[in-house]
Amino acid sequence: MKKLLMGVDVGTSGIKVVIFDLEGNVLASKAEEVPIISKQQDQAEENMQVIWEKTSQAIRSCLTSCGEEIASSIAALGVTGQGTGCWLLDSNLEPIGNAIVWIDGRAKQLIDLWKEDGRHAEAFRLTSNSIFTGSPLAILAWLKENQPQHLQKARHLVFAKDWVKFKLTGKIATDLSDLFMLPYPIEGEVKEVLRLFDLLEVEDLLPPFEDPCQVIGEVTPQAAQATGLPAGIPVVNGVVDVVACAVALGILEAGQAYSILGTTCFNAFLTDCVDALFKPEGVGITVAYPLPGLYLRSMATMSGTLSLDWFLNNFFSHLRERFPDKQAFFAHLEQEMQRVPPGAGGIIFLPYISPGGERAPFIDPHARGVFFGLSLPHDEMYILRSVYEGVAFSVLDCFQALATELEEIRLSGGGVKSSFWCQVLSDVLGVKVVVPRAPELGALGISMIAGVGVGMYKDLRDAFEKVFRVSKEFYPRLEHHRLYREKYNVYRTLREKLVDVWRMNDLIS
Amino acid sequence: MKKLLMGVDVGTSGIKVVIFDLEGNVLASKAEEVPIISKQQDQAEENMQVIWEKTSQAIRSCLTSCGEEIASSIAALGVTGQGTGCWLLDSNLEPIGNAIVWIDGRAKQLIDLWKEDGRHAEAFRLTSNSIFTGSPLAILAWLKENQPQHLQKARHLVFAKDWVKFKLTGKIATDLSDLFMLPYPIEGEVKEVLRLFDLLEVEDLLPPFEDPCQVIGEVTPQAAQATGLPAGIPVVNGVVDVVACAVALGILEAGQAYSILGTTCFNAFLTDCVDALFKPEGVGITVAYPLPGLYLRSMATMSGTLSLDWFLNNFFSHLRERFPDKQAFFAHLEQEMQRVPPGAGGIIFLPYISPGGERAPFIDPHARGVFFGLSLPHDEMYILRSVYEGVAFSVLDCFQALATELEEIRLSGGGVKSSFWCQVLSDVLGVKVVVPRAPELGALGISMIAGVGVGMYKDLRDAFEKVFRVSKEFYPRLEHHRLYREKYNVYRTLREKLVDVWRMNDLIS
Repeated sequence: MKKLLMGVDVGTSGIKVVIFDLEGNVLASKAEEVPIISKQQDQAEENMQVIWEKTSQAIRSCLTSCGEEIASSIAALGVTGQGTGCWLLDSNLEPIGNAIVWIDGRAKQLIDLWKEDGRHAEAFRLTSNSIFTGSPLAILAWLKENQPQHLQKARHLVFAKDWVKFKLTGKIATDLSDLFMLPYPIEGEVKEVLRLFDLLEVEDLLPPFEDPCQVIGEVTPQAAQATGLPAGIPVVNGVVDVVACAVALGILEAGQAYSILGTTCFNAFLTDCVDALFKPEGVGITVAYPLPGLYLRSMATMSGTLSLDWFLNNFFSHLRERFPDKQAFFAHLEQEMQRVPPGAGGIIFLPYISPGGERAPFIDPHARGVFFGLSLPHDEMYILRSVYEGVAFSVLDCFQALATELEEIRLSGGGVKSSFWCQVLSDVLGVKVVVPRAPELGALGISMIAGVGVGMYKDLRDAFEKVFRVSKEFYPRLEHHRLYREKYNVYRTLREKLVDVWRMNDLIS
Repeated sequence: MKKLLMGVDVGTSGIKVVIFDLEGNVLASKAEEVPIISKQQDQAEENMQVIWEKTSQAIRSCLTSCGEEIASSIAALGVTGQGTGCWLLDSNLEPIGNAIVWIDGRAKQLIDLWKEDGRHAEAFRLTSNSIFTGSPLAILAWLKENQPQHLQKARHLVFAKDWVKFKLTGKIATDLSDLFMLPYPIEGEVKEVLRLFDLLEVEDLLPPFEDPCQVIGEVTPQAAQATGLPAGIPVVNGVVDVVACAVALGILEAGQAYSILGTTCFNAFLTDCVDALFKPEGVGITVAYPLPGLYLRSMATMSGTLSLDWFLNNFFSHLRERFPDKQAFFAHLEQEMQRVPPGAGGIIFLPYISPGGERAPFIDPHARGVFFGLSLPHDEMYILRSVYEGVAFSVLDCFQALATELEEIRLSGGGVKSSFWCQVLSDVLGVKVVVPRAPELGALGISMIAGVGVGMYKDLRDAFEKVFRVSKEFYPRLEHHRLYREKYNVYRTLREKLVDVWRMNDLIS
């Protein structure tokens, strides 16, 4: 009897394939890394053929690891993945060069130009999306200007998940959650947006868009040979990774909020209010959601665990060597940090260490990281604590900018492994923080959507109720929250005061 | 034949005794540590009896180490030492409690009050000295308010060097270089200053002041017994340590400048222009100089090598363990830093890590250290380089504030051991940096003054010509200088922008 689901997550740094039962338990899981290709500074590409090869390898070894019976029990398959970027196919349905992925920065000058000439603001008014260097529109405009022959060959614009779905089923389709990243207009025609950037020809490249739960095809015999999957398994249309994650977190009603504390930090809430999508003006991204009348309004920072990894790699690698594994190392750090009072003795960390600056809740390519308030009694553990706190302040900063009142936050991403960090987030935000049990939320969410698509769940709520388990909950400690709110005011003042200095410094460095 | 000189330096953290020949060569040298007593945060005291015991021990072991012949060849002895603070003797010429030393902060609120009621500014107009918590006036006013019985017992106000001179000779005297720290008025009567702070009774406590080269007494039989010195050796009046250091550096003409890059960083230039003493208004200290018509105008920051030591202790102690000694460790660091470009990839360090904030070239007890401009490609060596550069910027900041055009700078203090730092200073300041050979400049300078006092040198210039040897010279590299001047503009803007944020942060931390 077919009662298993496969979720495939085409992430920026690699592919994850997970087989779940209908209660969301993991039966098998495999990951494959995909290299990011950077021919020039500011550029980030991925080889689409390599992505497919790695995906089929991961599926094959996932199936091999759990035996024939399980493979034949897979009822449906869903694919999710990184959003935006520019993934082009030619008339033979072959990739045109590498995919230019969402962290690419080549279109920087175009963004600057559009900000100056008002088109950036106009596009926001049409779409409630702040176009950034990784937006398909920005990359397409860059190609038109710099590699017109590349763009002329293009017949299809797809996204990461669509490319893998195409290799699995031979069908090209996408959904609004990825198209929103184009960005797609909230009301009106996509033509209006394309005309604004003199890219009307892109309309012909857009794939048909289908409902996320719609079965768009079946695993072809060729794909079956490549992956080891039985041919004929239905594949659903799917959604972009941040939406798959939200589904797995049970973000199903207006007002619910979540953060994905990964390398970068994605903060979002669900809303039925179109006005709320346009606040704050010019910043953030709106993503279509697989529930009628609901939108995901988001603020994605450039630096989540990135800040911590950077700091630890530079200053704690000698200590890391003394511990058998990461878990023991982090347990030690978090134990040591207990002696540092909340507020880190006055240190404030601004986590804008990305070479691209920051994009939420404010856009500033010149912004850079800062340790502020250092004093003689501070040792390395004080500074480390300020890193955890600074990232938490950046999450608060995002939710403060969004038109919502937080009541609770669901948390996922690599950062949740740290209970210390979860507690700091709860204290800083002043709300309950819920961490689910499931480790691979993108794959779980997309398998839930696949399950709905083939009728194994009644709907997403039904899937959520069968699958969701809480792993940890954190409650804000009032005294710490009061202190953190005061510190946040300083954090906020600091980043506002530094705008001119960042620009000044960037001009000479 | 008597042809040797002994210099005694009563420093904040310990005593140094050095025997020199007339060419400034060191024949013997000994150091003894003196503990700083801190009964409460913000308080720093030293036991005066312990200071004398440690001094006599250091003299004895210095003499013992070099034999009878040398001891009997000592022609004169000079004492220099830490300035300011409050050193009180009672009617029996016994210390009243501990000396309250110059880094003490108990008078913080009084300083705030005087800033508000205008007396701080008025005192500056009389004396060209910015009264700080370690000024005798501030501590005396604090005592009058908080421990009046302590002050009522006092019969003599001395300074560190004067206390040791008294124990050596039984004579009480001081000189203008220490009295300036009171602060002494540039023109007019000391009464005016004392009246301003309702401390007229202090006038009776002031010791007679003598010329620095004046022999004020001879080593008494009791002191001879305690130290091993032959009784009868002449002892000169002396000067405060920063002046002794300047003498050894050959600061003999108006316009000459020097820095002592020690734990804190003392930056000064010699001037014959009284107007220059009052620029910038309200900041810095003027010190009397043992040459007619010349004054030392200074800006002393709170953090010199302190910043580097703090950073290295916290983040490089594991690396330090891999090297046999400090020298090898620093050689490694400076080698590694060669790969970091000047400007540290955009990082700017503000070295205001002292718990007391900063006092030059601006006074801000709320100021704290900052690493600004951090980015993913920066590793620990980038940040380390920014520490060296940040301290150099703070030196430039001081000299920019002083009413002088730098032509060359003479450099001393522990920091000069680092040729890398000396070169950064030369590049940042844009002038030649000269480092003398002698390691113990305070003791050398005071032995030169002693030599002049007993006629072994004609005058200070004669002493300088016989003693001074250049160890290293550094010339500014134009390209680096241009970059650093641009960075300095950012440094300057940054610290100005942060004033409000420091205050805001200090109120909650």
